[in-house]
Amino acid sequence: MTEPARIGLLGRGTVGAAFADLLAERADAVEAATGRRPELSGALTRGEGDFGEILERSDLVVELIGGTGPARDFVLEALRAGRPVVTANKQLIAQHGEELFAVARDAGVQLRFEAAVAGAIPIVRVIQESLGGIEISKVFGIVNGTTNFILSEMAATGAAYEDVLRRAQELGYAEADPTEDVNGADAAAKMAILARLAFHTPVTLDGVSYEGIESVQPDDLAYAKELGLSLKLLGAAERREDGISVRVFPCFLYGGHPLAPVEGPFNAVMVEAPAITEVTMSGPGAGGPETASAVLGDVMSILAGEAPVHETREELPLVSDVSSSFYLHLEVADRPGVLAGVAEVLGDNEISVKSVVQRGMGEDARLVMVMHECLESRFRAAVEQIAKLEFVRGSPRAIRVIEEEFV
Amino acid sequence: MTEPARIGLLGRGTVGAAFADLLAERADAVEAATGRRPELSGALTRGEGDFGEILERSDLVVELIGGTGPARDFVLEALRAGRPVVTANKQLIAQHGEELFAVARDAGVQLRFEAAVAGAIPIVRVIQESLGGIEISKVFGIVNGTTNFILSEMAATGAAYEDVLRRAQELGYAEADPTEDVNGADAAAKMAILARLAFHTPVTLDGVSYEGIESVQPDDLAYAKELGLSLKLLGAAERREDGISVRVFPCFLYGGHPLAPVEGPFNAVMVEAPAITEVTMSGPGAGGPETASAVLGDVMSILAGEAPVHETREELPLVSDVSSSFYLHLEVADRPGVLAGVAEVLGDNEISVKSVVQRGMGEDARLVMVMHECLESRFRAAVEQIAKLEFVRGSPRAIRVIEEEFV
Repeated sequence: MTEPARIGLLGRGTVGAAFADLLAERADAVEAATGRRPELSGALTRGEGDFGEILERSDLVVELIGGTGPARDFVLEALRAGRPVVTANKQLIAQHGEELFAVARDAGVQLRFEAAVAGAIPIVRVIQESLGGIEISKVFGIVNGTTNFILSEMAATGAAYEDVLRRAQELGYAEADPTEDVNGADAAAKMAILARLAFHTPVTLDGVSYEGIESVQPDDLAYAKELGLSLKLLGAAERREDGISVRVFPCFLYGGHPLAPVEGPFNAVMVEAPAITEVTMSGPGAGGPETASAVLGDVMSILAGEAPVHETREELPLVSDVSSSFYLHLEVADRPGVLAGVAEVLGDNEISVKSVVQRGMGEDARLVMVMHECLESRFRAAVEQIAKLEFVRGSPRAIRVIEEEFV
Repeated sequence: MTEPARIGLLGRGTVGAAFADLLAERADAVEAATGRRPELSGALTRGEGDFGEILERSDLVVELIGGTGPARDFVLEALRAGRPVVTANKQLIAQHGEELFAVARDAGVQLRFEAAVAGAIPIVRVIQESLGGIEISKVFGIVNGTTNFILSEMAATGAAYEDVLRRAQELGYAEADPTEDVNGADAAAKMAILARLAFHTPVTLDGVSYEGIESVQPDDLAYAKELGLSLKLLGAAERREDGISVRVFPCFLYGGHPLAPVEGPFNAVMVEAPAITEVTMSGPGAGGPETASAVLGDVMSILAGEAPVHETREELPLVSDVSSSFYLHLEVADRPGVLAGVAEVLGDNEISVKSVVQRGMGEDARLVMVMHECLESRFRAAVEQIAKLEFVRGSPRAIRVIEEEFV
C-alpha cells in the first residue's frame, strides 16, 4: 500500500467546505484513479489553525481563501517548500501569476487553478492541455454568472437593473457587495488568465480593458429584442496581427450566435483556432460543489503525475483600439432633419449604418441604430460629436454588437 | 538541451498526413510547452516502412491506421516494448480497450485516445481528468457528424434520405461506404468508450444497443417540425439503480434542449453529474486537422508526464429495457373509431398520449402521436398489437423523444 496523500486546506468558506465534503465522499474513487488515498491533514480558517504546522503535515496545499493578501504569501511559501498547490483564486493568478509560476517552476512543483475560471467548465485544462499544441486565435465567452443572470432576468421581465440585482442577491447569485461582478472586474481577471494560457504571453489584470453592466437600461433590452439581439457581458481575448487584445464589455449577440441561448447563472466559453474551427463549452459558472469538483480534478492530476510548466514564450503587445460593431441609442427632438444630422456625422467618420428603429414619444423621439464594424476610436469620436448636436437630449448610449453568423 | 522526442507514425491517410504537417508546424510550441522537441522518426504506410524498424527508432508511437487488424498488433507490440501510444482508433479502443489498458499498465506506459471520440472536442480528457473525481450520472450527445449532417439537411430541405446521403458523400461528410455511420455502429463504439471512462466498468461494443437513421422518412421530420421537435442520432450512457445502459438511437428533441441547435457535421456531448449539474461541449466532430489537433494534445501530455491508469473499479450490469418517450407514426383508414382503437391498445398497456396530429389523405389518414415516458418493452408490445389492427396500413414507425426541459 502506498502512502496517503495529505492535503492541507486553506480556507473553509462555501467552496472550502464543499471541497472537504467531496474529498471525504470520493476518497475511494481518487485512490482507484491515482493510486493514492487523499486525506485532509489540516484546515486553516480565520480563527483556527497554524499555516506552518499545516504545511509541515501536507503533501499538497489547496488554497480557497481568495484575495491577494495572505493567500499569496501562503501559496508562495507552500511552493517554495516543494508542495504542489491547487487554487480557485482568480485574482491571485490574474495579478501574481508570473511570480507564482516562476516559483513553482524553480521548485519543480505544480500549481493548478482550473476552478479560478468558469466554475465547473474545464476551460483551463482544455486550453493548456487538449489544445496546448495548436495556435489559438480567440477565446471568447460569458465568464461571469452573476451578470448573465441579471441580463437574462432584465430581458425576460423588463425589470430595472437595481430590482434584478436585488433579486439576484436574494437568490444567492450575487454577493452583498456585487461591485467586482457587475463592473466587469471579475470577468477581466478570468480573461487575463485565459489570454495568458492561450497566447503564452504575460497578461495581467492591468492589461484588460473592461466595462460592466451597471448602466444597461431596460429599454436597451426592449429595442434589442425587436432587432433580434440578446445582451451578454462578454470577455474576448484575441490574437491580432499587431499583438493581442483582451477586453470585457456588454455586447448584443444575434440570435444565431452559439452564446445567445446561454441564460441565467451559466457560463460558456468558445475557443477558436484554425486547426479546429471552434470548440464551445458551457456549464454552471459558480457554486460550492461545482467549484469543489474542479479543485478535486486538479488535485487528482497532481497525484497522477507531472504537468506542463507555465513559461511564457513571447511578449505580445496589447492592442486596445479594435474594430467593433455598435448599437447606438439616442433621445432626440422629433422633427425633420434629425436622422439626416446624425447620419451625416456618422458618414463623416466613415461609419455605415446597418439598421435603424425610430419611434416618436410626444415632442421627443428615440433613435436606435446598429452600425457595421468600425474602429472603436472612430465610433467614440462620432458619438462625441453627435452628443453635441443641439437636437440630442441626454447622453447617447452605445453597446457593442457581434454580427458574425455562425454554423 | 534535452533529447528530441522521436515519434513513429503508423498510417498516413487524411489524419496521418494532417498530423505530420501539424507536428512540423508546431514543433517549437511543443518544445516550449513540454521541454522536448518532437520529430517524426518514421512513417508506416500500406506500401512503405517496416514496423519493427520504426518502433526501434521511436520514443512514442502514433497509430492512425484504423480498424482492428494490424493496428491492434502494432499497438500491443509498441506498448510491450515500453513505448507510449496515441491512437485515434475508436474501434480498437471500443473492442479491445481492456486488453490494451492492461498491457499499458503492465508496461508502465501511457495509452491515449482523445481523437477516437468526437474529433476536436476534448471529451475523453474532460471525463477522465477534469471530472475524474466526481460521480458521473450520464453522458449524452451527438457523436456522429455524418448522421447529424444528414438529419439537418433532411429537416431543412425535405429531401429523401438517399438524396441527402449522396450529397453528404459529395461534400466529404460521408464515406463511400457509409454503413457504420448511418446504422449507428460508429456512434456505438464511441459511446462504449465514454461509458467505460465515465463509469469505470468494462463496456465493449457488444454491450451497446444501437439503431441508425436509414429508415427515417422526410414526413417524420415534417410532422416533427409541427410538434416543435428536431431529430438527432443520440448516444446515451446512463448510470441507473440496477446498472448502466448504453444506447444509440434516433431521437426527437424539444426546441429548448441544449443539443437541439447542433446542426450539420458538428458533435456535442453533455456530461451530467450531481456535483456539477451538467457541462456541454460542442465542436467539429471529424476532419483531418481537427483530429490531428486532438492527437497532438495527447502526444504533448505524454511528453509532459504521467497520466491516470485505466483500471475498472467494478462490473456494473448492462440494462437494456429503459423508460423512453416515443413518437408513433401510423398510416390508417380514415373512418370513425380508428383513433379510439389505437388509444384503447395504448391504454391497455398503460401508455398515455401527450399529443396527436391526425390528417386525412383521401381514403387514408396519418396519425402521429407523442407518448409520455414508459418502459420500452411495454411500448414495443403495444406497437405490435397496433400493427395487427385491421385499419392500420403499412408498418408503424416509432422514434424516441426527449421531453425533458432544460435551463
